[in-house]
Amino acid sequence: MQLLEERIARDGRVLAGGVLKVDGFLNHQMDVALFCELGREFYRLFADCGVTKILTIEASGIGIACITAQFFHVPVVSAKKCRTKNISSEVYACKVASFTHGCVNDVVVSREFLCPEDRVLIIDDFLAEGNALMGLLDLVDRAGATAVGAGIVIEKTFQGGGERVRKTGLRVESLAKVASMSEAEGVRFC
Amino acid sequence: MQLLEERIARDGRVLAGGVLKVDGFLNHQMDVALFCELGREFYRLFADCGVTKILTIEASGIGIACITAQFFHVPVVSAKKCRTKNISSEVYACKVASFTHGCVNDVVVSREFLCPEDRVLIIDDFLAEGNALMGLLDLVDRAGATAVGAGIVIEKTFQGGGERVRKTGLRVESLAKVASMSEAEGVRFC
Repeated sequence: MQLLEERIARDGRVLAGGVLKVDGFLNHQMDVALFCELGREFYRLFADCGVTKILTIEASGIGIACITAQFFHVPVVSAKKCRTKNISSEVYACKVASFTHGCVNDVVVSREFLCPEDRVLIIDDFLAEGNALMGLLDLVDRAGATAVGAGIVIEKTFQGGGERVRKTGLRVESLAKVASMSEAEGVRFC
Repeated sequence: MQLLEERIARDGRVLAGGVLKVDGFLNHQMDVALFCELGREFYRLFADCGVTKILTIEASGIGIACITAQFFHVPVVSAKKCRTKNISSEVYACKVASFTHGCVNDVVVSREFLCPEDRVLIIDDFLAEGNALMGLLDLVDRAGATAVGAGIVIEKTFQGGGERVRKTGLRVESLAKVASMSEAEGVRFC
């Protein structure tokens, strides 16, 4: 998606350790006008899939998921990274390692918000090693629901997560695919 | 706001320990059509305040903040609960105790995303003891920016946070104000 690639090229920065910093528009400060265009594109791609629910993972997927959900007219379910006292003990749970944060989280969704009739579109900001996406897919499977696909804002193809997830048969659509990046040369898209 | 009070009365549940569980539409599963009405109301209340930025705190404030920002045509900045390796070391920081989670978090905002010219509307899902709101207000002050007000979805007035924050002079607008609640009798609004 040209608009997004241009924005990444202009405002993104490559940090040491394989981190693409896009916190000026995607995940710390959020450009909701851009999100609206991303949501429109996700809708174009998945409009005919009978989506009943959008699933994302807190925190940085929530904004893009909510804006996207306006196009689909469905609710968003945000998987939570730890068990708090106001989440039902009746949850589906999995473990997800975070590339960005260097830790492993318990990720949970209340059973009441995913059911076998659901056709789920997973939305997230990044796809790197694919851990979050595999975890969310696991939660959908546990619920007996159908994952119709995943809409990703930025996929770092060189980290292999996309290949790993597509091998499961899941349709993955990434609006920008980063082939390589370096502090010296910046970002190269596929 | 009648629509919201009706929804809380219908779908909210009061748990032991003073927790109002509204995770079916507000902060786990998110009803973005409802969020749109809440955002429209926040816009009606604060449209003439010259808002340049919406500030919220991850995770459960992000969805409502992003939908609200569409009405104001401004970016959202989401204060983060811990320092990660892709957040600049150049941050404003404060500590916030969480009533819901029973812990204290470091909360940070990158300096580049709040500046003295900003007129900031703070948006959050809950106002209970007021700790998150006081923390966000502190971050705005540190940046030398102006807080024009706070838009809250649900205020639990009996926990005193609203009174505490309004004493600072901040305009606080809560779309539903809970006067009291109990497991036996449910929620009573102001």
